[in-house]
Amino acid sequence: MIQRRMHLVAYLKTGPTANHPGGWRHPEAALHDIFTPERYEHIARVLEDACFDACFFADLLGLPDIHGGNFDAYLRKGGQISYLDPMTVLPVMGRVTRHLGLGATLSTTFLHPYHLARSLASLDMLTGGRAAWNIVTSATDLEARNLGMQGIPAKADRYDHADEVLEACSALWDCWDPDAFVMDREAGVFIDPEKVRYANYQGRSVSTRGPLSIPRTPQGRPVFLQAGASDRGREFAARWAEAVFCTPHGKTDGIAFRTDMHARMQSQDRTPDACKVLPGIAVVVGETSSIAREKAAYLQSLIEPEAQTMLHSALLGADLSRHQTAEAVAAAQGNQGITGSQDRVLQLMQKENISFAEAAARPRNLLVGTAQNIADEMEDWFTSGACDGFVVFPTVFPRMFEDFGRLVVPELQRRGLFRTEYAGRTLRENLAAA
Amino acid sequence: MIQRRMHLVAYLKTGPTANHPGGWRHPEAALHDIFTPERYEHIARVLEDACFDACFFADLLGLPDIHGGNFDAYLRKGGQISYLDPMTVLPVMGRVTRHLGLGATLSTTFLHPYHLARSLASLDMLTGGRAAWNIVTSATDLEARNLGMQGIPAKADRYDHADEVLEACSALWDCWDPDAFVMDREAGVFIDPEKVRYANYQGRSVSTRGPLSIPRTPQGRPVFLQAGASDRGREFAARWAEAVFCTPHGKTDGIAFRTDMHARMQSQDRTPDACKVLPGIAVVVGETSSIAREKAAYLQSLIEPEAQTMLHSALLGADLSRHQTAEAVAAAQGNQGITGSQDRVLQLMQKENISFAEAAARPRNLLVGTAQNIADEMEDWFTSGACDGFVVFPTVFPRMFEDFGRLVVPELQRRGLFRTEYAGRTLRENLAAA
Repeated sequence: MIQRRMHLVAYLKTGPTANHPGGWRHPEAALHDIFTPERYEHIARVLEDACFDACFFADLLGLPDIHGGNFDAYLRKGGQISYLDPMTVLPVMGRVTRHLGLGATLSTTFLHPYHLARSLASLDMLTGGRAAWNIVTSATDLEARNLGMQGIPAKADRYDHADEVLEACSALWDCWDPDAFVMDREAGVFIDPEKVRYANYQGRSVSTRGPLSIPRTPQGRPVFLQAGASDRGREFAARWAEAVFCTPHGKTDGIAFRTDMHARMQSQDRTPDACKVLPGIAVVVGETSSIAREKAAYLQSLIEPEAQTMLHSALLGADLSRHQTAEAVAAAQGNQGITGSQDRVLQLMQKENISFAEAAARPRNLLVGTAQNIADEMEDWFTSGACDGFVVFPTVFPRMFEDFGRLVVPELQRRGLFRTEYAGRTLRENLAAA
Repeated sequence: MIQRRMHLVAYLKTGPTANHPGGWRHPEAALHDIFTPERYEHIARVLEDACFDACFFADLLGLPDIHGGNFDAYLRKGGQISYLDPMTVLPVMGRVTRHLGLGATLSTTFLHPYHLARSLASLDMLTGGRAAWNIVTSATDLEARNLGMQGIPAKADRYDHADEVLEACSALWDCWDPDAFVMDREAGVFIDPEKVRYANYQGRSVSTRGPLSIPRTPQGRPVFLQAGASDRGREFAARWAEAVFCTPHGKTDGIAFRTDMHARMQSQDRTPDACKVLPGIAVVVGETSSIAREKAAYLQSLIEPEAQTMLHSALLGADLSRHQTAEAVAAAQGNQGITGSQDRVLQLMQKENISFAEAAARPRNLLVGTAQNIADEMEDWFTSGACDGFVVFPTVFPRMFEDFGRLVVPELQRRGLFRTEYAGRTLRENLAAA
């Protein structure tokens, strides 16, 4: 029997920090190159050297101004911001790699399926079948106002709309047969028009006629990533996602989430292996566990309390400088807020009997130790059925990924838990490989 | 007195042909690499070696199905199609060049200013100040239907909307002061929030709040290209454009167009040098004028009559297989059709006393001869005040640009009519340099 292997996906931002609000202050964090292509080419090479399945950019169409009712603290303290459009960065990363999957976060609420289908198909074409789409419905009023709307629609409406967007995109991606091109100069026949058809998609809130101007791509459609934690989000993921990332509070929660996903997928006639469940982790790795603990303590000391809180204000869609109980937060959110982030806080409150504010201030799953320690924990999650691999969040960028690739990945490989070379030609093939 | 110099911009498509509907059949036309980044990297290098100011991709969000009421002839005969999204191709071209301006055609009718401002700012950032935006309002119902609309709005409404889109984008591009970044790790201050402000743009049909998540870019905003030939289009260009490309029937028309543009710009308090007028040309260059003529005749023999007509059906927004007089075309267009293309046909009808169909079948300004002959004609247009340079359309791709760079450009340089090296740091600086 072939040993089951992990899948690893890197969480990136086009900015200095991701979800660690102190990481940019670390002396090894690269800040000078945020706006340069070299930064993103470097991390692409690092991740491909480490055999990561893929990376994707998280994204937000605006500057969070929820905390304190303005963006002052968020900008001053170095909150995570998308400083560049990932769709312009990913093609550049594709040119210095051959295997790494390349994912963009794109919103079904703010972009029409024709634009979505076209830019993702183009990325898939240019990268020889390595495009991924992290599908989000968006969850902030600030983005809606940037895009000319009064506020973000209700979650159920967003997901209903997203289902139609995915149906419309799928219809557009299926307009061309793979063998449509004739390119006969003598006969003057470039394309066989019999191999191309209209999409003619008409939903309740979405329509597109097609055909898409882009022929069938190496993957046919990008790999779908998703992170919905709410009931409706899980339903959506069970229908569409090929990998879901999640932020369970612990292994038990991870097992429960994965079991739930598998049950939901079964009712959509999908097998469990059709969608990988990938909890998010960050690591601090040291030569000894004592060194690692000191490094982690130093790293955590770089987080100012307000920086942690403002990040959660943005994630939860409520001003945590004003609202400090779960009830007050819920009342302030409106249609905003990411369910997964909120659940994690609430679970932690219950488990440790601490306040909402205290729970919100805790870091996410941060694995601290030697490469062996970290591989032990990852192996435990993996073999317990809590996951099919991990989404790896950066702390100090790009150093943490370099450390992870040099120290943790070889240990996982020694144990037979992770690939030593890419088996597939496309991202989808690599995700499917054992 | 410093000699006035020409500006050259290359017209590109992410497909095998541009507006020459037989070029793809030429034995030297590259067809195998349409979907590869290498094709676009190669042309970028060719154009930068030839000191072109910039290139831009023409674009269409769909497959033309106007001619004959379906897309059959258009696909079969190799009509121009945008096979890739230019915004994913341009960043790749930026990585193999240092000076060449990189332009995308993006529609003000189909994209929200926040998306437009963000992706163009991102391109400008990644390329160190070389982004250009070819601003179009779009002119086909088929695109509108792909984007979920019933049909394309009336031209006047499209331009009114476009003015607001440009105002909104400008507000978004001005949200950040250039010195907003502090990046003080010790003090924990990343950005000075005093240097960032909301856009708060509220027009009649467009609104955005901001701030843009992308800081001020090297050029502040992309260089604006435009090609509006209608009265309303020229008003728009006089307000916004930094280069307009046009397709006058001859030198006299060119002088009239440029004089008109300068008068319109004056009423907007802009000086004539603030916007370059660039007529479109294609060239066939040979060692002798006899060779060039034979090459041109061969090239033109590759055009099937229907291929020429179907291209004009797409440009004019009317099915020329059914409608063959100017009146019938006008009746069939609805809100569709590109005024510049139509004017050219009508001028040619009058001048040569030929039918609409005959006039529509004629090629655009095709210069045929030795490098000296072609430089003579370009110099004549330039010194007569008919233009500030040219948009160069490809016939056989990439061969025609290679020939143009190796043969015509050195001749222009010998005459002191064209730069021998880039003077500026950004595209805007190169466009401003004499």
